[in-house]
Amino acid sequence: MIAIPGGFVDVGESVEEAVLREVSEETHLPLTIDKISQFRVYSDPSRDKRRHTVSVVFRCHGDSNDVWKLKKGDDAKSVVLVPVLEVLNLNLGFDHKQILSDYIKTYYPKVAQLVDASSSTA
Amino acid sequence: MIAIPGGFVDVGESVEEAVLREVSEETHLPLTIDKISQFRVYSDPSRDKRRHTVSVVFRCHGDSNDVWKLKKGDDAKSVVLVPVLEVLNLNLGFDHKQILSDYIKTYYPKVAQLVDASSSTA
Repeated sequence: MIAIPGGFVDVGESVEEAVLREVSEETHLPLTIDKISQFRVYSDPSRDKRRHTVSVVFRCHGDSNDVWKLKKGDDAKSVVLVPVLEVLNLNLGFDHKQILSDYIKTYYPKVAQLVDASSSTA
Repeated sequence: MIAIPGGFVDVGESVEEAVLREVSEETHLPLTIDKISQFRVYSDPSRDKRRHTVSVVFRCHGDSNDVWKLKKGDDAKSVVLVPVLEVLNLNLGFDHKQILSDYIKTYYPKVAQLVDASSSTA
């Protein structure tokens, strides 16, 4: 199963601070507050089988030179970089397929058309 | 003290369902899911003196005919409708002045300029 990097917000920490901490812990990718922006909140009670959770999804603008710093954290088997055209074909956990589908429609509308076309002819 | 209508999400309820419920309870304004959209998440640990809370702020598109249905809920002294040009002059609770300032800059940039101009000459 593949999932978007993420985790729980600690008490006393803003959601932005949690994003920087979790991405660093899980991928070793260096991010700063100016490189992240809020996308959308997901809160369907059935989105996580373990218990009712609310996720704030962020867009992170990484530096292509930092790709080489990608390294899995202790709680992951590996970390992978996936082309946007292929990401919806993965076995994604939780509601992450829904999230990425919404994200692609919002930021890459032309890619969303291609993905729709390829899935309807598959 | 004046505050934006809101409240806590119940376990088993999406944030969208919580918005419809809280607005109905606190203002008696009828809203439907198609009339609300997410604006931004506020999570600074110091934003609420009582404890660390995270708020998902929504934009609600009301029907002007429904203004007459506005009626305070049990936990409020009154409910008021405030012109956007005047809202930042109110004694707002929590970080609601920050929220409304961000909101006006995003959706009413020309009003934001007017408000800035009037506060710098006051």
